[in-house]
Amino acid sequence: MNQKLKLEELNRISVDEYKNADKFPLILILDNVRSLHNVGSLFRTADAFRVDAIYLCGITGTPPHKELNKTALGATESVNWKYFTNTFEAIMEAKKLSYNIYALEQTSNSEMLQYIKPQFPIALVLGNEVNGVEESVLKLCDKIVEIPQFGTKHSFNVSVSAAIVIWHLYLNR
Amino acid sequence: MNQKLKLEELNRISVDEYKNADKFPLILILDNVRSLHNVGSLFRTADAFRVDAIYLCGITGTPPHKELNKTALGATESVNWKYFTNTFEAIMEAKKLSYNIYALEQTSNSEMLQYIKPQFPIALVLGNEVNGVEESVLKLCDKIVEIPQFGTKHSFNVSVSAAIVIWHLYLNR
Repeated sequence: MNQKLKLEELNRISVDEYKNADKFPLILILDNVRSLHNVGSLFRTADAFRVDAIYLCGITGTPPHKELNKTALGATESVNWKYFTNTFEAIMEAKKLSYNIYALEQTSNSEMLQYIKPQFPIALVLGNEVNGVEESVLKLCDKIVEIPQFGTKHSFNVSVSAAIVIWHLYLNR
Repeated sequence: MNQKLKLEELNRISVDEYKNADKFPLILILDNVRSLHNVGSLFRTADAFRVDAIYLCGITGTPPHKELNKTALGATESVNWKYFTNTFEAIMEAKKLSYNIYALEQTSNSEMLQYIKPQFPIALVLGNEVNGVEESVLKLCDKIVEIPQFGTKHSFNVSVSAAIVIWHLYLNR
């Protein structure tokens, strides 16, 4: 009765259909994300939610790259992406396209995710694994979002936290 | 005005405080998860939400392990865990402790996450990266949960999808 679905039964769209499909009005801006595994994982999540685009900034790796594809598993073919030498330029481009700029960070004024009423379209800035989102970048953001945490560690993995936020935005779209 | 919080300003609890703190009534059951990076990442997320325990089954790696700790970053010290030679035994233990058994999988009868009204306490079964949750294991579950997907790829990364479900359960606790 609870039969696992075969790959063809999942009825996923093709890369061509994806390119023409309506997108979720969300851009992910990767502010110097170091790990290619994280970048690949973010591509895979972005594909599933059909986000508008990923902006890869600074030291963030870009496709094609073997390590990146280990976790992207081909999602670099479907999701739109663009490289910027720095995060400032990526934010300026998103602002020009009328996106509201949110960042995921823990600051003195960050708002807990569960209370966020998203104003689309949104560009979500995700920070470096060690340093988070740059202070100078935070100044350019309309809203800083924080995920509540109750444990001993200081932060979530960036691809994990991004997925939580994207799910929350999807539910409140 | 939006000042990034320093590590000490995050006011995280210590491992000793964690051990004595109230837990979120959720066990993660890892059904033959192959990647140590995924296991470590699940520990880190489990720590943040203070889940009851992680049950590591079959080929799933156990702490201490260098590769696992690359992504767990010490969360194996705080989160309770237990090893089972097979997933069946882990589920029997959780059932004995009165946990409702949910699995994350795409089946003919899976319910979309956004409609799930969770009945706590919950043990959430997470499957192998390639094969998902075993059919024989699915038969033992009270509910099969699916995350909607709109892209070209067939599934989420397991640590990413687990985080989305845990967040949803946390919001609906």
